[in-house]
Amino acid sequence: MKKTDMKKLRVGICGASGYTGIELLRILALHPHIEVTAVTSEKSAGKKLQEVFPFLSAYRDLAFEPMDKERLLHKADLFFLALPHGASQEAVHYFFRKGKRAIDLSADYRISDAATYAEWYGLLHNHQDTLKKAVYGLPEIYRKKIQKARLIANPGCYPTSAILGLMPALKSRVIDPSTITIDSKSGTSGAGRKADLGISFCEVNEGFRAYGITTHRHTPEIEQEISSLAGKKVMVNFTPHLLPVDRGILTTIYARLTKQMDTQKMLSHYTRAYASEPFVRVLTGELFPNIKHVRGTNTCEIGLKVNPRTNTLVIVSAIDNLVKGAAGQAVHNMNLMMGFAETEGISHLALFP
Amino acid sequence: MKKTDMKKLRVGICGASGYTGIELLRILALHPHIEVTAVTSEKSAGKKLQEVFPFLSAYRDLAFEPMDKERLLHKADLFFLALPHGASQEAVHYFFRKGKRAIDLSADYRISDAATYAEWYGLLHNHQDTLKKAVYGLPEIYRKKIQKARLIANPGCYPTSAILGLMPALKSRVIDPSTITIDSKSGTSGAGRKADLGISFCEVNEGFRAYGITTHRHTPEIEQEISSLAGKKVMVNFTPHLLPVDRGILTTIYARLTKQMDTQKMLSHYTRAYASEPFVRVLTGELFPNIKHVRGTNTCEIGLKVNPRTNTLVIVSAIDNLVKGAAGQAVHNMNLMMGFAETEGISHLALFP
Amino acid sequence: MKKTDMKKLRVGICGASGYTGIELLRILALHPHIEVTAVTSEKSAGKKLQEVFPFLSAYRDLAFEPMDKERLLHKADLFFLALPHGASQEAVHYFFRKGKRAIDLSADYRISDAATYAEWYGLLHNHQDTLKKAVYGLPEIYRKKIQKARLIANPGCYPTSAILGLMPALKSRVIDPSTITIDSKSGTSGAGRKADLGISFCEVNEGFRAYGITTHRHTPEIEQEISSLAGKKVMVNFTPHLLPVDRGILTTIYARLTKQMDTQKMLSHYTRAYASEPFVRVLTGELFPNIKHVRGTNTCEIGLKVNPRTNTLVIVSAIDNLVKGAAGQAVHNMNLMMGFAETEGISHLALFP
Amino acid sequence: MKKTDMKKLRVGICGASGYTGIELLRILALHPHIEVTAVTSEKSAGKKLQEVFPFLSAYRDLAFEPMDKERLLHKADLFFLALPHGASQEAVHYFFRKGKRAIDLSADYRISDAATYAEWYGLLHNHQDTLKKAVYGLPEIYRKKIQKARLIANPGCYPTSAILGLMPALKSRVIDPSTITIDSKSGTSGAGRKADLGISFCEVNEGFRAYGITTHRHTPEIEQEISSLAGKKVMVNFTPHLLPVDRGILTTIYARLTKQMDTQKMLSHYTRAYASEPFVRVLTGELFPNIKHVRGTNTCEIGLKVNPRTNTLVIVSAIDNLVKGAAGQAVHNMNLMMGFAETEGISHLALFP
Repeated sequence: MKKTDMKKLRVGICGASGYTGIELLRILALHPHIEVTAVTSEKSAGKKLQEVFPFLSAYRDLAFEPMDKERLLHKADLFFLALPHGASQEAVHYFFRKGKRAIDLSADYRISDAATYAEWYGLLHNHQDTLKKAVYGLPEIYRKKIQKARLIANPGCYPTSAILGLMPALKSRVIDPSTITIDSKSGTSGAGRKADLGISFCEVNEGFRAYGITTHRHTPEIEQEISSLAGKKVMVNFTPHLLPVDRGILTTIYARLTKQMDTQKMLSHYTRAYASEPFVRVLTGELFPNIKHVRGTNTCEIGLKVNPRTNTLVIVSAIDNLVKGAAGQAVHNMNLMMGFAETEGISHLALFP
Repeated sequence: MKKTDMKKLRVGICGASGYTGIELLRILALHPHIEVTAVTSEKSAGKKLQEVFPFLSAYRDLAFEPMDKERLLHKADLFFLALPHGASQEAVHYFFRKGKRAIDLSADYRISDAATYAEWYGLLHNHQDTLKKAVYGLPEIYRKKIQKARLIANPGCYPTSAILGLMPALKSRVIDPSTITIDSKSGTSGAGRKADLGISFCEVNEGFRAYGITTHRHTPEIEQEISSLAGKKVMVNFTPHLLPVDRGILTTIYARLTKQMDTQKMLSHYTRAYASEPFVRVLTGELFPNIKHVRGTNTCEIGLKVNPRTNTLVIVSAIDNLVKGAAGQAVHNMNLMMGFAETEGISHLALFP
Repeated sequence: MKKTDMKKLRVGICGASGYTGIELLRILALHPHIEVTAVTSEKSAGKKLQEVFPFLSAYRDLAFEPMDKERLLHKADLFFLALPHGASQEAVHYFFRKGKRAIDLSADYRISDAATYAEWYGLLHNHQDTLKKAVYGLPEIYRKKIQKARLIANPGCYPTSAILGLMPALKSRVIDPSTITIDSKSGTSGAGRKADLGISFCEVNEGFRAYGITTHRHTPEIEQEISSLAGKKVMVNFTPHLLPVDRGILTTIYARLTKQMDTQKMLSHYTRAYASEPFVRVLTGELFPNIKHVRGTNTCEIGLKVNPRTNTLVIVSAIDNLVKGAAGQAVHNMNLMMGFAETEGISHLALFP
Repeated sequence: MKKTDMKKLRVGICGASGYTGIELLRILALHPHIEVTAVTSEKSAGKKLQEVFPFLSAYRDLAFEPMDKERLLHKADLFFLALPHGASQEAVHYFFRKGKRAIDLSADYRISDAATYAEWYGLLHNHQDTLKKAVYGLPEIYRKKIQKARLIANPGCYPTSAILGLMPALKSRVIDPSTITIDSKSGTSGAGRKADLGISFCEVNEGFRAYGITTHRHTPEIEQEISSLAGKKVMVNFTPHLLPVDRGILTTIYARLTKQMDTQKMLSHYTRAYASEPFVRVLTGELFPNIKHVRGTNTCEIGLKVNPRTNTLVIVSAIDNLVKGAAGQAVHNMNLMMGFAETEGISHLALFP
C-alpha cells in the first residue's frame, strides 16, 4: 500500500502554545500523512490558533481547547504531550491505557527507575506499570523498540546532545566513563515560553551564565543512558549554560582515552558508527559544529579531536533544542512507530543565516 | 497530467554561495518538480557544496563551478542569477537570448528606464532590448505577465515591503502619493555575505543606524512601481536602517489621507484587496507585524492604523528579506512561469522563535 | 569654595531596582559630590543591594527599604523618583512641599496641562499646584529655569531624542511643523524590568515591531515641546518600535522644508545651535548616528540630510534611553540645580563595542 | 605629595584603533593622572581620532600616527602596546631599552620560555634578554613585582579568567592539577576589529561554536601559571568557544578534589583568599557569575560548587575580556607601577543591562 493512499493519522497536541508545541505545529503542517485534530492550551482555550499566533496560518480552523483528556480521547489516534513535568504522568497513562499512541515530551516517562525520578524531580511516579511500557525515544539507540512501541518517552534536549556525542566512544570502550565531563550551552527557548524576569530580554541578551550546576534534572537521564552504553554505572559532571540565542544546544564533552588513538582514527570510527543515520552528521576536514548550522533541523552535528598532550577525547555536538531536542525527534519517533518514511516532514535544511 | 509525473526542471544558480544563493538551495531542496544541476561560486569553484556548507546536506554530489555562461548553458533550463548588480546584465541577456528562462535577483532588469538605471547605479545598460522583455516579478501586481514571461526581474527586498504595503491604498486613491514617507529597517543579511568591517559582529550587534539616507538605490525601483499604481509620477522619502538581526525587513509607511476613513474601514479594504493572495497576511484585531513572525517564510504581513489627529495612514509591513524579499519570491515566480502550484516549496511556516 | 570641600549632598532613589534606578546607582557611584543614602524597592525591601545586585559593589552597606515617604523624608536632601506613572504624583508633591528637591523620572509632572495628562494617562492630576512648579528638565532648552528649580520633570526618552533632533530647525522656522513624522526605535530596557512574556528573550530577540501606533503616551509630551518651539499648536505622527538591543533610541524625523536649503547649510545651522552644549554631538562628514556610539553616555548624536527631490529634511538622532533618556539627564539636572559642574559624573565615553 | 599635584604621566598607545586600543582610550579619558599624547594606527594615520571615532569625544585634538618607534619615543613616558603578536617584540624591546615603561598587551612577552613561545606562536623570540625582564601582569599573583617593574606582559583574556578561577584551589592543593578541564566562552570582540567573513554579523549571531580545540595559543600561558601555582608541570584541557555577544568571557573549570570538601568550606577558602583584592568578587548565596554583571568593569566574578557525586570542584569565573582581560588590567598594572591608587580610573560599575 502506498503511504499516500493511507487515511491520515489524527494527531492531538497537549500543551500546544509553548515553544515545543508551536514547533510541532510548524513541522506537522507539512507532514503529508497526518492531520492535527486537537490542540490544548489552558490560557488560550476557546481561541482560534490564528488569533493567538497569526503565523500558524496553515491551521485555519483549529482552536485551542482545555486539557480534558476524556474529551480529547476520541479526537486523535496519537498524542504528543508537551506538558510540564508531573502534568504528563496521568494523561500519558490515560491515553496509553485507552489504546492510543503517546509521545511524551516531558521527563515523566524517561527515567526507568521510579526512585531516581522521585529523587531528582521531587515527585512520586503513580503509574509505574505504564512507565515500564515506555521506550526511550532516541532512534539512534532504540530504533527497533520504537517501531513496536505505543508509548515513547521523548529524550531531553541536553541528553540527546550528550548521548549522541558519546555513544560510539562508549560502545567501543575507548574512553574511561568515570572521567566524563559534559559542558552544555543552550539557547533560551529551552527555558520555555513564559513571563519570567530571569529570561526577559535585557537579563539574557549580551549575558552568559551557568545554572543548575551539579543539580540539573537532565543529569540522571544522561547517566541512565551513558551507563547502559558503558555497561556499568556511571556518574558524570554536567553543567548547563544559558546562551543569548533563541535555539540550539552545543555540548562539549571531555573524557580520558583508555588507549592511544589519534583524531583521524577516532573520526573514522564515529563516521562508520553513524553512517546510516539520517540525522547525525559527523564533521571531518577540520570542521566543527555550530548551532547555527542545525537551526530548524533534526540534525545532530558532531565533531571531535583527540588531545594527545592530556590523552583526552574532546567531542562537540550541536542540535536544535526544539527540533532534534524535542519536536523533530518526536516526529521522527512518530514516523518510526507508524511506518512512515523516517525523514518525512523533518528533512528540511537549516535556516542559515 | 499530474505534476509529479513531469520530468524535473533543471535549475542553475549563478552566485550560489551568498546568502540569497544559499536560501535558494534551502528552499529548492524540498521542491518536488525541480533539480538543481549547476551552482556557481568564484571563490569556492571546484569544491563540493558539502565541503563548504556541510548543512546543505541535500546536495551530496553537487560542486561549485565558476561563472562560465557558455559551459552553464546546457546544464539547466532555468537560471536564478544571484550576482552583484552589473554582473547580471550580460549573463541574463545571454541565457535569455539562447532561449532559457532567467530569474534575475540583481537590480539589473528592474528599472525599465535605462536612464534612471544609469543615474542611480552608475552603469549603462547594454541590453535594452532584453530589458524590455523583463517582467517585474511581484506576483501580487504582475501575476498574469509573469505566467507568460521568460525573463523575470525579481524585486528588491525594500521595494517588495513598500509596494505591498501601499498598493491597496494607492489603487483606491485614498492617500496623497506626494506625502509618502517610507521608513525601513532591515536585517544584516541584506548586506550580503562578505568580509567587511562595517558588518562585522561587534560593529552591528547592539547597534542601530540609518544609512543611504536620500540616496539608496531601491528608491527609483519603489518610485517606478508606486508611480504606476498612483497613475502619476511620484517621489518618496525612503530611509533604510540596519537592524542587528539576521533576517527581516519591517517598513513603516506614512501618507496623508485624501478623505476621512477610519482604521476599521481601511483594514476591510486591505483585507479584501489581498483576500486571494497566498503570501500576504493582513492583520486585524489590534495585531501588528513582527519580522519574527515571517522568518523563513514567503509571507508579507501587513498591519495599519489611521491617525485621525494628523489625518495620516500608518502602514507597517514585514517580510523575510531573503525569502519574500529574494529567494522565496523568485521561486514563486518560477512556480508561476512553469505552471507549478503557486505555493509549491514555499508554504512552510515561520521558524518561531 | 571648592566643590570638593562641600559637604556631600544626600540623595535618595525611589524605585531603585528597575533599570533606571540601577543606572542612577551606576552613575552616582562615581559622582564626587553626592552620597546615596536611601534606596527603595518594594520587592527587595530589607535586602542589601549587594545581595540582589552583586555588581553594585560600590554600595556595600546600603539596603533597600519600602517606599515610605515619611520615613524617607529626613534621609536625603534630593530625591530621584523612578516610580511608575501615577505612583510619583503623591510622593513628588510630598517631598517638594516639605522643602526637598525632587527629580521625577515618571511622566507625572511633564505635561503642564492637566487635562491632556488625564486624557493620555487615564489619571487625574491631584497636585496641580505642584505641577505648576515643575520645570521640564531638558537642559538644552530650559537650563536657566532648571538652575533655579526645586522640582524637575525629567523628560521621556523618546521626547528627548525627538525634541533635540528638531529644535534648531523649528526655532529657525525652516520646516513646516504640520508635516513632522517621527519614527523612533528603542532598545528593550525602555519597557522596564519585569516578568512579562512580551519582553521575554525569545519573543524580542531576532524580532522587530512597531507598537503603540498613533497612541503612545509620549506623543503629547513631544507635541507640547514642539509646539512651544514652533510657536503654535502642532500635532505629529509618532511611531515607536522595539529593537532587540538592551539600550538606545534612534529617531528618524521627516519634515518638509519651508525654503530651499542644502544639507551643508543645514548642518552648519545645527552645529552652531549646539556649539556650546556638552551633551549634543552634531555629526558632519557623511557620518550618521548609531545607538552603539552613545551607549552608556549622556550624549545625543544628531545627523541630518536634506532630500532635494522631496524638499524634505531628514534628521536622525541617537541617545542611550537609560542615560540621556533617563538617569544621565536626571544627574545633569541635579548638577544644574546644585551648581555642580554640568558634566560631573556623566562625562564617560561610550562603551564600544 | 598629593597625587593630583603630580605632573601628568604622558601615555602612548600603539595600535589604538582596535577594540583594545579603543577601550584603553575609553578608560584613560577619566584617569586623573595621565595624558594620552600619542596614538598609532596604520590605517587611520593622519586622521584625527574624532573623524574616525566621533564617540571618542574626550580627545579633541589627538590624531593617529603611524607606528614609528623612533618618532614616538619622546612623545610619551609609558607605552601601551596593543599590536598583533610578533609585531610587539621589537617595539617593546626598543622602548624598554631606551628607558621607557611598557605594558605589552600582545603575547610576545608572556611566555617566559622562548622555546615554548616558538612552538605555539611559530615565531622566534629575538629579545630574550628583554623577555627576562618582563613581569607577568596579573596583580593578584605578582603585585609586588609589578610595582617594581618597567616591562609588563599583560595577561591574555582566557588565562586571566582561568588562573584567577583556579588559584586558591591550586595553592591549597585541594585539587589534582592533572585533572583540570577549562571550558571557556568568549565574546566576539576577542577576535579583534577587522574585516573577516568568519566574524561577520550573520555568521556569528544566533550561532555558537568551539574553535582552536586542543591548539589555542593561550594554552601554554595558562599552563605556565597553573604549573607555577601547583608547584609542578601541569597540562590542561582548554577549549575556547565563540559567544554571540560583544564582550565577556565565562570560564567553567572542572578538577577532581584531592580530599573531601563541601561547597561551603570551599567558598570560605576562596572568599578569604581574595578578601583584599579590589577586582575579584567571590559570589556566595547560590549566586553565580554572569558576563553581563562584569561588563565594562575590571572585576573578575567567581562562583563555585562541589559535586559530591563525582568528587569534582566546578568553578565558574567571568570577566570582561576587554577590561580585566586586556585594557583594564593594563591600567591596573600602570597604577601599580606608577604608585597611583590601584583602582584609579577602573572603579566604575557594570553597564547593566
